[in-house]
Amino acid sequence: MAPWGELLAGVRGVLLDISGVLYDSGAGGGTAIAGSVEAVARLKRSQLKVRFCTNESQKSRVELVGQLQRLGFDISEGEVTAPAPAACQILKERALRPHLLIHDGVRSEFDQIDTSNPNCVVIADAGESFSYQNMNSAFQVLMELENPVLISLGKGRYYKETSGLMLDVGPYMKALEYACGIKAEVVGKPSPEFFKSALQAIGVEAHQAVMIGDDIVGDVGGAQRCGMRALQVRTGKFRPSDEHHPEVKADGYVDNLAEAVDLLLQHVDK
Amino acid sequence: MAPWGELLAGVRGVLLDISGVLYDSGAGGGTAIAGSVEAVARLKRSQLKVRFCTNESQKSRVELVGQLQRLGFDISEGEVTAPAPAACQILKERALRPHLLIHDGVRSEFDQIDTSNPNCVVIADAGESFSYQNMNSAFQVLMELENPVLISLGKGRYYKETSGLMLDVGPYMKALEYACGIKAEVVGKPSPEFFKSALQAIGVEAHQAVMIGDDIVGDVGGAQRCGMRALQVRTGKFRPSDEHHPEVKADGYVDNLAEAVDLLLQHVDK
Repeated sequence: MAPWGELLAGVRGVLLDISGVLYDSGAGGGTAIAGSVEAVARLKRSQLKVRFCTNESQKSRVELVGQLQRLGFDISEGEVTAPAPAACQILKERALRPHLLIHDGVRSEFDQIDTSNPNCVVIADAGESFSYQNMNSAFQVLMELENPVLISLGKGRYYKETSGLMLDVGPYMKALEYACGIKAEVVGKPSPEFFKSALQAIGVEAHQAVMIGDDIVGDVGGAQRCGMRALQVRTGKFRPSDEHHPEVKADGYVDNLAEAVDLLLQHVDK
Repeated sequence: MAPWGELLAGVRGVLLDISGVLYDSGAGGGTAIAGSVEAVARLKRSQLKVRFCTNESQKSRVELVGQLQRLGFDISEGEVTAPAPAACQILKERALRPHLLIHDGVRSEFDQIDTSNPNCVVIADAGESFSYQNMNSAFQVLMELENPVLISLGKGRYYKETSGLMLDVGPYMKALEYACGIKAEVVGKPSPEFFKSALQAIGVEAHQAVMIGDDIVGDVGGAQRCGMRALQVRTGKFRPSDEHHPEVKADGYVDNLAEAVDLLLQHVDK
């Protein structure tokens, strides 16, 4: 690994994953990861631009931000790039009327969307709502369409709750892809459009930005393919084998967000 | 397509898929497909060897055969090759103790299997038991294992019930494969070992046998890869697009089992 000073030269903006980096979700609103509340505050007091870039699709941004604020984080809805609003824009642009296979917590993000007589399926991290019956309904909608369109909010394999690893939307997306013989369109990380919209919101170019996440493929690999640098934290869903991933190598590995912010504030151009 | 006489020359044995060929499963035990009860009876009166080769994994063989007998079919448990007994043999041979993600209807097939302290997962067509919680438990077992083993009873995409198309085990197998970054071992069609064990039971060589099924990939493609001939019926999950499948071409297409048996009895060597 190159020295940190070299690795972080020219960084002007930081994209932060939320789950597994700021906090571990779970019963009772989850728990902040040690040092992360202060790390976010220090980052926001610095000259660096900060944007939160999440694949959270169980909760609306309002609910997510409220939960994080209660844990002590300095964060507001306008600072968050999340897949549900991005999906709504695509649905409107292409006149798509979705059958929604989503968690009730995120339903309010789709309030303005026409869901009558569906001509596509939108799948998100539905958690307990991934029942056989709900999966089968989405499958049947897709099989009835001449050109089946499946939009997936992220394609994460799993995430970490305080109680353990939990299946994310990705496995269920794969299930519908296989059942119908189709390929889903992913809205959220690691889609390049999604990273770009987060960068655009803070006016930072990809080569001036660093992504910090716990997902070696979705966060690190995705950001690197967009021309960003990327650090993986050893919190959240991180597993030691990630540091020897066959396809993705992070620009750096840090114990947690606090260490990442220490390094950033030490080494980026003053 | 070559003339039927040429196509069916030298056939000595017939493998019959059950669901979608003999009957459509569904509420109240399902319904026999028109002409199939008589077709099976005629086939069994002929000089041809007959074996039923199913991926049914929701019901035990006892229950399946009982249901078919009530619909009028001449069939007994000893004539059926099914994936659950084949899986039990593998589990015993390899000292595997499964976590079972299966339908309650097939649980009795695993009565003799040690399921304590699991070192693998067996997934079958669990239907309504494919809840998020059950999927997540299987996922967590696999993630805890150093060498995760996933055994899937078939890998069908979907099947047809009287009420419509229903997701089969395949999509859920794909979900766990993706979540854990592993490849499942499939027991059942289209696995060559499975077809071979069905042929062995009737003492017929692959080149002397014809498979009759409604699944262009699992039945037709699988049997052909074993050196058998294969006919697709236009019942069950058959869809017109199957006749232009990009990878698999049946040796012949027939409207239903009755037509297949007509042709067999007309054209095979007396």
